[in-house]
Amino acid sequence: MSVVPKALEDVVDAFAQLPGVGRRTAFRYALHVLRADREQADRFSETIARMGRDLCRCATCMNISDSEQCTVCANPTRDRSVICLVEDMRDVISVEATGQFRGLYHVLGGILSPIDGIGPADLHIPQLLARFKDGTVCEVILALPATMEGDTTCFYLFRQMQQSGVKVTSLSRGISVGGGLEYADELTLGRSIMNRVPYENSINR
Amino acid sequence: MSVVPKALEDVVDAFAQLPGVGRRTAFRYALHVLRADREQADRFSETIARMGRDLCRCATCMNISDSEQCTVCANPTRDRSVICLVEDMRDVISVEATGQFRGLYHVLGGILSPIDGIGPADLHIPQLLARFKDGTVCEVILALPATMEGDTTCFYLFRQMQQSGVKVTSLSRGISVGGGLEYADELTLGRSIMNRVPYENSINR
Repeated sequence: MSVVPKALEDVVDAFAQLPGVGRRTAFRYALHVLRADREQADRFSETIARMGRDLCRCATCMNISDSEQCTVCANPTRDRSVICLVEDMRDVISVEATGQFRGLYHVLGGILSPIDGIGPADLHIPQLLARFKDGTVCEVILALPATMEGDTTCFYLFRQMQQSGVKVTSLSRGISVGGGLEYADELTLGRSIMNRVPYENSINR
Repeated sequence: MSVVPKALEDVVDAFAQLPGVGRRTAFRYALHVLRADREQADRFSETIARMGRDLCRCATCMNISDSEQCTVCANPTRDRSVICLVEDMRDVISVEATGQFRGLYHVLGGILSPIDGIGPADLHIPQLLARFKDGTVCEVILALPATMEGDTTCFYLFRQMQQSGVKVTSLSRGISVGGGLEYADELTLGRSIMNRVPYENSINR
């Protein structure tokens, strides 16, 4: 007979499903929510319920949004001819933080990963292709992770987009700003040599 | 204008209040709950709300319970003459896992920590002293963390219990000094219960 009540066990199970959270940490989280005061569990629960209720996907870019069009897609000053293709919302935030991109986004909702059972049908690919129909989009920037899965997904999408006549570009790979050459792996360094740019371009950032 | 909807931001804030969780991790948790499907956020939320609704403290030992008496206190086969005093429920689970203890528990709900603003009034001390009234309790085993705060709390409680005529023992220092109960292996913890010593001996270290 366990000393842990069922209602608490359920919360531990729920927390343990979060990425990178084991049962010990999940238990710590559950006790923390329960400990402070009775209302904290209510508030915590209500916040998550509200998220489930209020949020949807932007009808255009499939990013998480609280209205039919997300703030980026609804912004009339954004350049509608360029789409930056990213894996999820965190990447949108990262790209926005650079202040270098004034176009729109498309959130794929994941990348192809046979090991995790994620195939093309699980990604927002038809929605991407549908955006090419009215001829506004000239360029798609592939900004997926520089991993094997990311590269595979890029190649798959490139093939899908080839007929559309849209220019497909990819983020440049190279030495990170502030990083020394000795810390770069051979692949990255090799790629940055192949894709070297005129010096004038590199200082006009 | 932020690209993160308010409802999502609120959940990130809620997760970020969990112990050891920063904003980046909180964001990852929030996206995970939101991603799988609409119902997952509902289920997650409902689980936590149910925990807040269904759980209370055991009237005897102050452990978290779903009924007025927890499963340990309600068990007629437990030895009612010995009380193992612990900080919180995780420690009850740890001690139960050793299989070395057949008595009851008392959950203090924390330990004295002036830095965190936790004083005697925040702990379940009156409830502990009230358990001595009917003369059933012969011994209290102090099983608080072997930290400075734990030691201070033990000393404070020892003084409080001195008049009661109850024997006060302490876990033997098989537990590594500076470590919390939840990290001890069952063997060490079990041995330290068997080898418990009178509290007077343990302070003359």
